[in-house]
Amino acid sequence: MSVTDELLANAGRYAERFDKGHLPLPPAKGVAVLACMDARLNVYGLLGLSEGDAHVIRNAGGVVTADERRSLAISQRLLGTREIILIHHTDCGMLTFTDDGFKHAIEAETGIKPDWAAEAFTDLDEDVVQSVNRIRADPFIPVKDSVRGFVYEVETGRLREVKA
Amino acid sequence: MSVTDELLANAGRYAERFDKGHLPLPPAKGVAVLACMDARLNVYGLLGLSEGDAHVIRNAGGVVTADERRSLAISQRLLGTREIILIHHTDCGMLTFTDDGFKHAIEAETGIKPDWAAEAFTDLDEDVVQSVNRIRADPFIPVKDSVRGFVYEVETGRLREVKA
Repeated sequence: MSVTDELLANAGRYAERFDKGHLPLPPAKGVAVLACMDARLNVYGLLGLSEGDAHVIRNAGGVVTADERRSLAISQRLLGTREIILIHHTDCGMLTFTDDGFKHAIEAETGIKPDWAAEAFTDLDEDVVQSVNRIRADPFIPVKDSVRGFVYEVETGRLREVKA
Repeated sequence: MSVTDELLANAGRYAERFDKGHLPLPPAKGVAVLACMDARLNVYGLLGLSEGDAHVIRNAGGVVTADERRSLAISQRLLGTREIILIHHTDCGMLTFTDDGFKHAIEAETGIKPDWAAEAFTDLDEDVVQSVNRIRADPFIPVKDSVRGFVYEVETGRLREVKA
């Protein structure tokens, strides 16, 4: 049995006890969270979210590229969210390589150099500020009164705010 | 008190009872999940994931753009995941608009037309297949033996596989 099949069995149990079939499409709490994809970062558990509460956007690093700006524009313009929470974390994989090294390794193997930035970074707090600044500079995200950035500490479970 | 402050209070309680400080960086189950950002789709709850189990990538629609291919390349090449689970869902916001309409509305308001595709779609199952096909066509994601796509039913809590 693959891991996917194992997780599908879990999903079957989730459906059996499901009682949230009538939640509305817009997030109840009016918040969009943008976080790293890291396995140790359980956004629902950490922030105490329940089904229906918040949009959750995630990628390698929790960085802000065109696709996150697209998602945030849709979140605010079509579904009414008004606050943004950014979460990076300690011991992040993005701290372990460089864009150049990663892309050269891929080119050496495949013969093609990726046409995207890998978005590696060397300083967690600086990259949180970078992400906040990218959102602030975006012309398509309308509401920027509450864009706050944090570092989640995978060692302690704590969330530390980064002033940006 | 802002909603962000309310969620930070929840995060404080999460840290108080935290006992997962020594989990490794690579996901224990070797899986990357790519799902829509929708608030009603609780990926951890649905798939029975715990902290440390799986990468979770999310965006508006659960679509595959350059940034998701970047995240999946990093997930597989640097952190060893080997299976991919794609999740779209019923009653998705992406079914409620068109790329042209959304971008023209933004242009009318801001004077600038977004330089990204909004990635709206009209058929859920077709867009799951589209996402699987985009991953299969990507030259930088090395492991494609298990790329499976699903529609989550927000009305019933069930996960339905789409053959791609």
